[in-house]
Amino acid sequence: MGVYLDHAASTPLRPEAREAWLAAAELTGNASSVHGAGQAARRVLEDARERIAAVLGCDPIEVVFTSGGTESVNLGVKGLWWAREPDRSAIVLPDGEHHATLDTVEWLAAAQGAQVRPVPLDPEGAIDADAFAAVLPGAALATALVANNEVGTVSDVARLAAAAADAAVPLHLDAVGAIAHTPIDFAALRGTGNAPHGLVAASVSGHKVGAPVGTGALVVSRFARIGAVLHGGGQQRGLRSGTPDVAGAAALAVALELTAAERDAESPRLTALAGRLADGIRRIVPGARLLGSPDRRLPGHVHVLFPDALGETLLFLLDHSGVEVSTGSACQAGIAEPSHVVMALGYGDREARSVLRITLGRSSTADDVDAFLAALPDAHRRAAASSARAAARS
Amino acid sequence: MGVYLDHAASTPLRPEAREAWLAAAELTGNASSVHGAGQAARRVLEDARERIAAVLGCDPIEVVFTSGGTESVNLGVKGLWWAREPDRSAIVLPDGEHHATLDTVEWLAAAQGAQVRPVPLDPEGAIDADAFAAVLPGAALATALVANNEVGTVSDVARLAAAAADAAVPLHLDAVGAIAHTPIDFAALRGTGNAPHGLVAASVSGHKVGAPVGTGALVVSRFARIGAVLHGGGQQRGLRSGTPDVAGAAALAVALELTAAERDAESPRLTALAGRLADGIRRIVPGARLLGSPDRRLPGHVHVLFPDALGETLLFLLDHSGVEVSTGSACQAGIAEPSHVVMALGYGDREARSVLRITLGRSSTADDVDAFLAALPDAHRRAAASSARAAARS
Repeated sequence: MGVYLDHAASTPLRPEAREAWLAAAELTGNASSVHGAGQAARRVLEDARERIAAVLGCDPIEVVFTSGGTESVNLGVKGLWWAREPDRSAIVLPDGEHHATLDTVEWLAAAQGAQVRPVPLDPEGAIDADAFAAVLPGAALATALVANNEVGTVSDVARLAAAAADAAVPLHLDAVGAIAHTPIDFAALRGTGNAPHGLVAASVSGHKVGAPVGTGALVVSRFARIGAVLHGGGQQRGLRSGTPDVAGAAALAVALELTAAERDAESPRLTALAGRLADGIRRIVPGARLLGSPDRRLPGHVHVLFPDALGETLLFLLDHSGVEVSTGSACQAGIAEPSHVVMALGYGDREARSVLRITLGRSSTADDVDAFLAALPDAHRRAAASSARAAARS
Repeated sequence: MGVYLDHAASTPLRPEAREAWLAAAELTGNASSVHGAGQAARRVLEDARERIAAVLGCDPIEVVFTSGGTESVNLGVKGLWWAREPDRSAIVLPDGEHHATLDTVEWLAAAQGAQVRPVPLDPEGAIDADAFAAVLPGAALATALVANNEVGTVSDVARLAAAAADAAVPLHLDAVGAIAHTPIDFAALRGTGNAPHGLVAASVSGHKVGAPVGTGALVVSRFARIGAVLHGGGQQRGLRSGTPDVAGAAALAVALELTAAERDAESPRLTALAGRLADGIRRIVPGARLLGSPDRRLPGHVHVLFPDALGETLLFLLDHSGVEVSTGSACQAGIAEPSHVVMALGYGDREARSVLRITLGRSSTADDVDAFLAALPDAHRRAAASSARAAARS
């Protein structure tokens, strides 16, 4: 494996999560079965639910296991839609959301009659909280990224949650990309009271924190009005039918606990590494621009605009040198498109194709940063030359 | 662990599937990422897809990975519904389907305007093929279990698929419970031609064949008109967004291959064990009635009506003796309800609470059968006495 600097796309499996998975996977027995084997599986499942609840600041019954971030977001958004008040049909959708949200809302608009109320990002990539609050009244639901998954800017979700509570609109937060670096205290963000409004659901994903791919959860308030996306045997409060993945749940619990325990030490370490990375990039390519926010950014997240080179070409050349980065979200099935996030920051199509996302994680070291910086001059020179040739031809 | 005779609920993880999972889980890298790590993950994913396609008789591109049987069924049924011809709104739904199908169709009826066209089961629990064909014309879609998951009767799916093709109606088959014991040849069942009708989708689940819980697939014909259930990054032909679970896919491929390779030997072995089990039950409880079919039954599947005892009580007492069986589907979140399948066979509420499902699998032995038969006399005597007391009181 090369120098891996794409931790926002997926981060290595933690050995402790692997061990928890292995131990639980040996338990034969469907956790819905009444017999001893089923109950043994159920105990492991409920133990995982309790531990995850402790990390995320919610009640165990509020943890709904899913198959990952995309399913969590689909359940959070569609679930609130299916149970909306009948006279409401607008969805508050900030610009620059992850495709799991974006495509879900687009489908609800195209197939189910939803209206979309967009919310602009500020120039640093955070959701404009005033604009968000302004379009909330009368909406069926609102959704928001905790931290933008491309530029890494953390939004003021406490303000967004308070605004949703004030406007009596249910809010889903997508914490998939943020949870590795930003604590989520569901109870604190939700506040007191039993209204089905304000923060009622939050999505997390396992493979962003060192649990296996295919694991995740949606925190759903006991007071939420929410429908299911997967129907069937009625498991998990009827919100997520299907035989519960006990081994995945056990691994997710371990990974979230370790992530939370390490965060105070990891955060400054990754911030320092990211600073070293950003400084090095600007030294090598003076015209490079750091997008996102200098002070409200996920630690370990560096997002750079190279005005004279295509991100795709840079990625290819860096990969050839054994350095693995991204042009943005990995979740677009390998299709190189201009970044809708960069365009939401006010840039054009050309700039939206000229970005790299470099993301550090638990296994990242100063050597990884230096390897990137060693590979960048040649990759950038060749990518810029390629762009100049293309421009001369056109 | 006790004597486990509930393989239809979940069957032990195969060591070879565990090893495949472990090897693939060590690959960091999102299979949608362009860089080397992503491409390495993608190669494992596509290799798994090819191997599963070979087992199920379809093209690799027709294999859509899901998080399990429930998601597969939801995608098969809702996906066909979302892409139905606009003037069609009826769903052909045989009696006695699994709750994943039943609850999905009930939701489509309650929330999306679907009409339900029921189809009776014959007295042995197979779908009545003539009645099925009779209600097909003009339907939006049809769905059918390959083998009933409670009584174990295998339906004539070749006839059902041919009838759907004749009527130009798309058909989804739920092979989740059957695939461990019955080969599915998608191409043969589908026939030639590129119409979006006839058999177009088939569901399978991993943990019924020795792959981990949380794995599964929906085979989707290239010619199907089908929508997504989980929206997002557009992975897997846009039919199932979300970071693909490469490790789960690799484990599923191994488990399906081994299942197919062992079937010719396992089938007569399990049939013989099930025969021994059924003979023993009738010897101990002469009034016990075997439900389902004597000759069209999944091998290793025994479903018994005890007219004088509650299934729930029998299950509890047997479990206390270390013998683990089921009263029917495990997928009803542990709630003891009368079996809708037994009622579809013409029995009343009382009989529908008086059944046990005993299912053998790969790890089952004659000792397991004998342990069940040793525990049955006392459990039955006490359960029957308990029922008699309850009857005397009422």
